[in-house]
Amino acid sequence: MADEVVLLDTWASMFGMRVRIALAEKGIKYEWKEEDLRNKSALLLQMNPVHKKIPVLIHNGKPICESAIIVQYIDEVWNHNPKIMPSDPYERAQARFWMDYIDKKVYDTWRKLWLSTGEERETLKKEFISIFKQLEETLGNKPFFGGDMFGFVDVGLIPYYSWFYSYETYGNFKMEEECPKLIAWAKRCMERETVSKTLPDEKKVYAFIDGIKKVLDSK
Amino acid sequence: MADEVVLLDTWASMFGMRVRIALAEKGIKYEWKEEDLRNKSALLLQMNPVHKKIPVLIHNGKPICESAIIVQYIDEVWNHNPKIMPSDPYERAQARFWMDYIDKKVYDTWRKLWLSTGEERETLKKEFISIFKQLEETLGNKPFFGGDMFGFVDVGLIPYYSWFYSYETYGNFKMEEECPKLIAWAKRCMERETVSKTLPDEKKVYAFIDGIKKVLDSK
Repeated sequence: MADEVVLLDTWASMFGMRVRIALAEKGIKYEWKEEDLRNKSALLLQMNPVHKKIPVLIHNGKPICESAIIVQYIDEVWNHNPKIMPSDPYERAQARFWMDYIDKKVYDTWRKLWLSTGEERETLKKEFISIFKQLEETLGNKPFFGGDMFGFVDVGLIPYYSWFYSYETYGNFKMEEECPKLIAWAKRCMERETVSKTLPDEKKVYAFIDGIKKVLDSK
Repeated sequence: MADEVVLLDTWASMFGMRVRIALAEKGIKYEWKEEDLRNKSALLLQMNPVHKKIPVLIHNGKPICESAIIVQYIDEVWNHNPKIMPSDPYERAQARFWMDYIDKKVYDTWRKLWLSTGEERETLKKEFISIFKQLEETLGNKPFFGGDMFGFVDVGLIPYYSWFYSYETYGNFKMEEECPKLIAWAKRCMERETVSKTLPDEKKVYAFIDGIKKVLDSK
């Protein structure tokens, strides 16, 4: 029996992009279902009743939730090359640590920055940039977070690259000036078709979140 | 060369207890270093410069941070029985999902409840109990979260049992009335020496956090 793989997702989600990149890396065909997050489908509520969030990977009828968990699942089930997780347990623990760091820091800090004004925005901007500086330091002089190979942390972080233009526009800074090595890394990742074909246009992302912001501001 | 294993920890930490239980399950000898969190050691700051938090497992000089990541590391490095992670990838994804649920929900909600008063406390109390009801539902009629075997989610949740007396005293509710099956599960876990010898006395935990609360209230 062929595998039945369905992804509940929404195009601008960096968490969804992680899963799309992982599936592309492994060459897995799947059905992509775009969710309207203001009007969630019965299928999404049934498949992720706890968090009610995308992405959800449905593999032969069984749901897997939370992007970092889904990416590990994909790597374990379709365990042919390219491997996403490192083979060494210590390297694996380090990769999980940095994925967890991204998950704890980037989105929440960005959200606060996005909704802030004045002095608070300046403080949050410094905090936000320092997160990326930390990640750049962790990357060091390696081509990828996974070393010579594109791996788990690369899959976890690269989707944010499609949001950099929005971060820069709202935060009034230039990522290339703050973190030039990280930008070089992102461009290296974009040379992979699995990444470049997954990431949406940065201007489209900006128009999308600016639209949401205008609705929020008008309330 | 024998493995050199050091654990930076503090006795009342449920996150530290997870690591202690996992090491006990695997029969690993280690040096336990109690940290004073108001005066963190140079070793802790050096080994976990990003979060500066316990627990940190130092294995042959190399640090591993974040309790859920450490427990997986222990299971992968000392991969003899008893296994902590399920062998099936789907079961493994489910176990990671519930560990992540515990990590996202229990501690933060408890902390807010602990520091709240009046009506806010009542709302948070309901939310807090609903988290454990959700976990009880997930357990279902299985002996352990891992099925017939004590596993990853059991390791993740059972340390909180030593805090139940404090939760009940501050929250003015009885966990046994709210979640009888979860209490039965906790007692089943306590039959394991790896658990019963790790968990501190619940009254000692209460005295400890009540001491902190009194200091906070006096400020």
